Amino acid sequence: MKKIKEVNCDLNRNSRCGFPEFIYGEGKTFEQIKLAICEIRKNNDPVLVTRLDRNVGKKIKKLFPDGIYDEYSRVFFIKSKKARNNPGKITIVTGGTTDLPVAYEAKYTLELCGFSPTLLPDSGVAGIHRLLENTEILQNSDIIIAVAGMEGALPSVIGGLTASPVIAVPTNVGYGSSLGGLTAMFAMLNSCANGITVVNINNGFGAACAAIRMLNRYLSNRLSKSPLLPK
Amino acid sequence: MKKIKEVNCDLNRNSRCGFPEFIYGEGKTFEQIKLAICEIRKNNDPVLVTRLDRNVGKKIKKLFPDGIYDEYSRVFFIKSKKARNNPGKITIVTGGTTDLPVAYEAKYTLELCGFSPTLLPDSGVAGIHRLLENTEILQNSDIIIAVAGMEGALPSVIGGLTASPVIAVPTNVGYGSSLGGLTAMFAMLNSCANGITVVNINNGFGAACAAIRMLNRYLSNRLSKSPLLPK
Amino acid sequence: MKKIKEVNCDLNRNSRCGFPEFIYGEGKTFEQIKLAICEIRKNNDPVLVTRLDRNVGKKIKKLFPDGIYDEYSRVFFIKSKKARNNPGKITIVTGGTTDLPVAYEAKYTLELCGFSPTLLPDSGVAGIHRLLENTEILQNSDIIIAVAGMEGALPSVIGGLTASPVIAVPTNVGYGSSLGGLTAMFAMLNSCANGITVVNINNGFGAACAAIRMLNRYLSNRLSKSPLLPK
Amino acid sequence: MKKIKEVNCDLNRNSRCGFPEFIYGEGKTFEQIKLAICEIRKNNDPVLVTRLDRNVGKKIKKLFPDGIYDEYSRVFFIKSKKARNNPGKITIVTGGTTDLPVAYEAKYTLELCGFSPTLLPDSGVAGIHRLLENTEILQNSDIIIAVAGMEGALPSVIGGLTASPVIAVPTNVGYGSSLGGLTAMFAMLNSCANGITVVNINNGFGAACAAIRMLNRYLSNRLSKSPLLPK
Amino acid sequence: MKKIKEVNCDLNRNSRCGFPEFIYGEGKTFEQIKLAICEIRKNNDPVLVTRLDRNVGKKIKKLFPDGIYDEYSRVFFIKSKKARNNPGKITIVTGGTTDLPVAYEAKYTLELCGFSPTLLPDSGVAGIHRLLENTEILQNSDIIIAVAGMEGALPSVIGGLTASPVIAVPTNVGYGSSLGGLTAMFAMLNSCANGITVVNINNGFGAACAAIRMLNRYLSNRLSKSPLLPK
Amino acid sequence: MKKIKEVNCDLNRNSRCGFPEFIYGEGKTFEQIKLAICEIRKNNDPVLVTRLDRNVGKKIKKLFPDGIYDEYSRVFFIKSKKARNNPGKITIVTGGTTDLPVAYEAKYTLELCGFSPTLLPDSGVAGIHRLLENTEILQNSDIIIAVAGMEGALPSVIGGLTASPVIAVPTNVGYGSSLGGLTAMFAMLNSCANGITVVNINNGFGAACAAIRMLNRYLSNRLSKSPLLPK
Amino acid sequence: MKKIKEVNCDLNRNSRCGFPEFIYGEGKTFEQIKLAICEIRKNNDPVLVTRLDRNVGKKIKKLFPDGIYDEYSRVFFIKSKKARNNPGKITIVTGGTTDLPVAYEAKYTLELCGFSPTLLPDSGVAGIHRLLENTEILQNSDIIIAVAGMEGALPSVIGGLTASPVIAVPTNVGYGSSLGGLTAMFAMLNSCANGITVVNINNGFGAACAAIRMLNRYLSNRLSKSPLLPK
Amino acid sequence: MKKIKEVNCDLNRNSRCGFPEFIYGEGKTFEQIKLAICEIRKNNDPVLVTRLDRNVGKKIKKLFPDGIYDEYSRVFFIKSKKARNNPGKITIVTGGTTDLPVAYEAKYTLELCGFSPTLLPDSGVAGIHRLLENTEILQNSDIIIAVAGMEGALPSVIGGLTASPVIAVPTNVGYGSSLGGLTAMFAMLNSCANGITVVNINNGFGAACAAIRMLNRYLSNRLSKSPLLPK
Repeated sequence: MKKIKEVNCDLNRNSRCGFPEFIYGEGKTFEQIKLAICEIRKNNDPVLVTRLDRNVGKKIKKLFPDGIYDEYSRVFFIKSKKARNNPGKITIVTGGTTDLPVAYEAKYTLELCGFSPTLLPDSGVAGIHRLLENTEILQNSDIIIAVAGMEGALPSVIGGLTASPVIAVPTNVGYGSSLGGLTAMFAMLNSCANGITVVNINNGFGAACAAIRMLNRYLSNRLSKSPLLPK
Repeated sequence: MKKIKEVNCDLNRNSRCGFPEFIYGEGKTFEQIKLAICEIRKNNDPVLVTRLDRNVGKKIKKLFPDGIYDEYSRVFFIKSKKARNNPGKITIVTGGTTDLPVAYEAKYTLELCGFSPTLLPDSGVAGIHRLLENTEILQNSDIIIAVAGMEGALPSVIGGLTASPVIAVPTNVGYGSSLGGLTAMFAMLNSCANGITVVNINNGFGAACAAIRMLNRYLSNRLSKSPLLPK
Repeated sequence: MKKIKEVNCDLNRNSRCGFPEFIYGEGKTFEQIKLAICEIRKNNDPVLVTRLDRNVGKKIKKLFPDGIYDEYSRVFFIKSKKARNNPGKITIVTGGTTDLPVAYEAKYTLELCGFSPTLLPDSGVAGIHRLLENTEILQNSDIIIAVAGMEGALPSVIGGLTASPVIAVPTNVGYGSSLGGLTAMFAMLNSCANGITVVNINNGFGAACAAIRMLNRYLSNRLSKSPLLPK
Repeated sequence: MKKIKEVNCDLNRNSRCGFPEFIYGEGKTFEQIKLAICEIRKNNDPVLVTRLDRNVGKKIKKLFPDGIYDEYSRVFFIKSKKARNNPGKITIVTGGTTDLPVAYEAKYTLELCGFSPTLLPDSGVAGIHRLLENTEILQNSDIIIAVAGMEGALPSVIGGLTASPVIAVPTNVGYGSSLGGLTAMFAMLNSCANGITVVNINNGFGAACAAIRMLNRYLSNRLSKSPLLPK
Repeated sequence: MKKIKEVNCDLNRNSRCGFPEFIYGEGKTFEQIKLAICEIRKNNDPVLVTRLDRNVGKKIKKLFPDGIYDEYSRVFFIKSKKARNNPGKITIVTGGTTDLPVAYEAKYTLELCGFSPTLLPDSGVAGIHRLLENTEILQNSDIIIAVAGMEGALPSVIGGLTASPVIAVPTNVGYGSSLGGLTAMFAMLNSCANGITVVNINNGFGAACAAIRMLNRYLSNRLSKSPLLPK
Repeated sequence: MKKIKEVNCDLNRNSRCGFPEFIYGEGKTFEQIKLAICEIRKNNDPVLVTRLDRNVGKKIKKLFPDGIYDEYSRVFFIKSKKARNNPGKITIVTGGTTDLPVAYEAKYTLELCGFSPTLLPDSGVAGIHRLLENTEILQNSDIIIAVAGMEGALPSVIGGLTASPVIAVPTNVGYGSSLGGLTAMFAMLNSCANGITVVNINNGFGAACAAIRMLNRYLSNRLSKSPLLPK
Repeated sequence: MKKIKEVNCDLNRNSRCGFPEFIYGEGKTFEQIKLAICEIRKNNDPVLVTRLDRNVGKKIKKLFPDGIYDEYSRVFFIKSKKARNNPGKITIVTGGTTDLPVAYEAKYTLELCGFSPTLLPDSGVAGIHRLLENTEILQNSDIIIAVAGMEGALPSVIGGLTASPVIAVPTNVGYGSSLGGLTAMFAMLNSCANGITVVNINNGFGAACAAIRMLNRYLSNRLSKSPLLPK
Repeated sequence: MKKIKEVNCDLNRNSRCGFPEFIYGEGKTFEQIKLAICEIRKNNDPVLVTRLDRNVGKKIKKLFPDGIYDEYSRVFFIKSKKARNNPGKITIVTGGTTDLPVAYEAKYTLELCGFSPTLLPDSGVAGIHRLLENTEILQNSDIIIAVAGMEGALPSVIGGLTASPVIAVPTNVGYGSSLGGLTAMFAMLNSCANGITVVNINNGFGAACAAIRMLNRYLSNRLSKSPLLPK
């Protein structure tokens, strides 16, 4: 059988969308991921592979030793040499310690694109003082990424405390009727705090991309349309 | 066709369960409800019909003019003459104004059984100060009934603020992915605050009965096993 | 029975969140809505009631003749006299004509808060040229609100064409396995275009509030922290 | 990368809620659990880790040899030296033998807080005599925790036999349309016995906490507000 | 447009299945039902129309005055003149009064086929004595049809009390998480009592047909293969 | 407010897709439908409005008296004068009489595009002889559209009898666990007969369009790429 | 900790229900199953353990070498010495080969209780001739157990061919939208063939018990109430 | 126990349906698959086993060394010697690289039946130019098989670009609210592009069979009814 080119990277996504094509790792073979990384590197874009399981991850790390593989959040990334530090205060809050892998996925994505987010872990609403004592940090954030599983109440309380954009990330933390994170996701979509937006379950990466879209728009205006990401 | 006796009231429920048989009004004909009320009155129990729609409700009110029919909460009730005032601080909190019919269903049930609950409406988590300024009332309550729709976050925050028993009542307030109240219900069942218990969607009546079970137990111990409800 | 104050408006929400308390109309009685409007007007905030059905809507319009009631989108609003025109290019795109009530809900909310969104109706992906011929408008938008029912593919295509923030609003347009809009909502949450965020089904209002959060942040920075909304 | 403090224990929960922060073990790393246990012990609170899988459980047990790890119910706990014996008759009933791990989770939680529950296993409604012959025990209980999977009918029958508070715990015992315990949970939420409250699937721990909230309230009243749990 | 013959009755179903083609009334026009009844009468079979709404039902009754239309259970039927009385003790039990329309649908179907079922209404498990005092009737039944909504526990208890075949009929009695009867249906399918079989929600008719299949088999053996139904 | 052009017809769809833009009637206002019809007529395309409810339908019929409005299937259509008769044997089979509105929707769509389908109503699998006696018609069909609700078994049996393409249309005929047609739809998607394809619930229109796509391809090849539909 | 007796066998179930307590193996420990088998054997009842996984199954077989463990259907059983051969023609039909483990579970259960079922495997509706050529066997069966996954159409076709009782057993054979067998189960519950009853997914055991209930009733009448199962 | 013949191949399916009985591999034992292959080979039909897991697949390959086992798509096949090359342009498009196993299942099925499909991988709508640059290939295809997971938007865009039949294959690529492919499947069933048909999740095989049904019909007409597949 003739060999089919199985990977077809979207190499001008950076100029269109403000971030390059990142690689969805789950279900891809080692060969497919290797091929995609090579294409992206040729383009001088930073490399990010999400949801990359241990077995393939370790082999990829061995092949690209300048990259970092974090098994806990299943992320592999290679920073671009031209990366710069962007302004923009992004705060990532988690309901519990168990939500951290998702928060790290967001954090690595943002850092790869030149942002320096602050992480406030374990601030769930069952001990609301932990959240309230950070009210000022929250109100001074340009964007808040709120990561929570179980009943997903965190973004509602944050949304009521601040005027900042809040991106809610449901996680699959919980069991039984948490329905693999659907309960948190549905709760966030029905927040009584107005103007909360939501991404898929465990999608820390998507929340980071949404934040980059917002900050890109903001920065590109202030900075005379200069591109946000390293070229 | 021979006439079947369609209603078979459980007339000794009061002595077994601490409250008499109440009547589930939805889907019952006027004749069936009338028959059930008559049996219960013969037994000298207080009468409560829940989920009773307007058409039948008005006819029942006309037939039993000493009863009260509240169309807003769809409740019909006739107080027993031997009702007494029971101790016990019960607080009913609602997330929004729209949750009130469910809160009233709980309130009427409790009042019929001799309790005097306090109602704190419109205290949702998007304006958390409204809840926090009532912290003392909540902490002094023997039982808190927390009624909320949408994302159902209210009981989680209350549960973290107090040591009191919290009975969570999800409501069908919301739309789309609120799933007719399932989202609030699932959220409450997955509360990160420990020890929250939950009843069916819109089941203010059930929450009241659960509160009565708890207070009955408490009172019967202190009051030498005397029955709570009027006989 | 003593009269309970059923409405407890969160009158400092404007200073905390950048928009005042708006009123969720569904399931509220005429009296409750009237009371809420009066409180908000006393506070000199603009008035917005969403999901307000015809019967109550007409009575509210009669009582507050300076307001506008749009039966098609079920929105009632009264502009504040101090409203000003805010900068910010917001584009609202709909998949089909049938999605328009939701788009109008977003449009009215934005206009009430001083923004002037552009509306591009009937641009679904089954005639992709209709979308592609507006690529420049989309790429020049500060925020895009993409409203679609059925398979909800619109935000994915837009997200791939632009670097702007995209807020996806699923609608209940469709039947059978559209599951009242859940299919569009799930599809949007699983968009292969990165960084799309999603609000509840038919929640044009929520999308507008999310846009206001983003633009508020942007404007408050550029405009030396001056508040966005009229006080 | 700077090390983030990933665990942020809520160390005054005992005074607020009547029980200390317990640790949700699922999805936490060995390091995170170790850190949390250390913080709680410094506070002199009893330690409870739920849903702790075998691999991590065994390492934790090795590190804290004064604790007990029960692999069957996935619970690890360390009793506080100041534990005392509280009054209060709590009965835990299970539908089948297979529901026992959940019942043990409840039992260990209660014992850690100084209560001495009675366990009646394998009393499902298909052999109703097994339940009826324990009617007196049930009626004399201050609280009944009813644990059942499959069709979840147990709490309905118990609720009809007694005036005591009944906390229903659905389990995931069953297969196919038992839907991982959702069927039992939905059934319990729709009990025709009034005043049954429900916790999440397999949440024996939560049922125990709810029981503690009730008994705490009762005891603190009778015992002049003295705190229930050891300090 | 040429007229299509829209109804194509299966007129030899009686000889194949032991009961004739009955008519599913929901969604059929008056003309279609009229046509179907005429065909069945020409065949000298008894007529049964289920789920027939008021408007069409009244017109059908006017056209076929020898038939009976019961609006409560939405059943229309015309007895065959050759009907005979079959042996076989069938007991129909209902959980509550509100389940009666479904029980009547079963009862009419059985009576039309020559059986004389006994109806025990309002025997739900929350007052288990009401069921236990009928234990002997249940044990002497050739078939038990157990009709219940809400948590659907009735068949489990009956199945544990008797050796008779139990056909469980879930009803849509309940609200919220009763999910329109799905909760009762799932519960019955997961009964811990062995050998319970289940039909669709509200399908009293189907339960009756299942009973007829069983009794037909029994009778045809004893009565030398003579057909059960009138020809 | 400036008037927005709410309808944006895709007037070259006929040349791209082989059929013109048809109008989805549900949820559109009278004005929107009128505007869409006018645009399509200017283009000399045939007009089809599906899912058009009685009130609007009657007004549209009055405005366009050369069109036909069939209330039973909720279809309005105006034939193009240049319509021609296309070859191609299409057979529409329904499980029951109650599935007919969906079958008619398919039939009208096909006829509008110049095809002459055969309709075999009321051929459900409970009387399998009714299907088997039409085996030859089925095997000689170029395309079979199988319309069924309830358990949706019809396409599986047809698919096993023939080599022709089978398009399965689930309907919402049924109640309870038919889940508004989802059960039939899921069943058809899981057919043990290979190569069955499925459209949305009640989507007779979509099945007809799929048939047109197939026949167009076939005809355009044989007929030297001449367009199928009238221009 | 004091040892709790974790198993509480219902040893008079045979006299009440016509079959002894059988053991649900899933989720039970080796010790629990061993204990239950010992109790049942002391009672001289036949032993049946269902859903018993390989690891425990092999240890149980070693302990009770007179029993048979079938890994394919996960059944362990020990025949009673007093077993007798009961009359009654039971036919078990499966849609495909992959449904066989469920069919064997039914077969072993029936054989243990003295029946001799006939098994017709791989008779799915996609090759309907395979079913039709067995029409006579089906029509002569006292009970038919129809086992099928995927779209679950088998019982509908069988139900239309025969007057015998049909017990439908959905299996989890299939993938994707077969939803682990829910699709087959829902389809069977919505059968257009009247009088089909359904058990839980993969519940061959339950279907066998239902068959025993029916045949017991029949036999006990004919055989002067003598008990069916060996004592 | 007497040995039952567990496999009952439908050996004349080729003449009835245009393709032979293929083997569903999942859940079958090695012995069952071996037996089925032997029967099919005796009939001189080509052999295809789908969803065949690694362990059994390797043993089958060893036994039938002239076959090919592709572990990636879980397909085993043995070409028939009489295979011929059929005309017909079939294009298989995938949204992403991760959808490839499903695309290969379709490709192998088509090739086994003598077709030569073209595969266009990784053409998702987030980089719509990748699809648009293949517009001509798509418009010249006799059939398009569109394979996509996540939001499943691909077939909608393709359906709007072409007049060809489009068979949509949802895949389980995605996580969280992709619901194992249900989201993509529901989206495809609700496509705003008319005339898209859908098969089960991951059912590349079924899509290929549907394509064969269509092409068979076309070819048999043009080629005087000569059978498509090798005999």
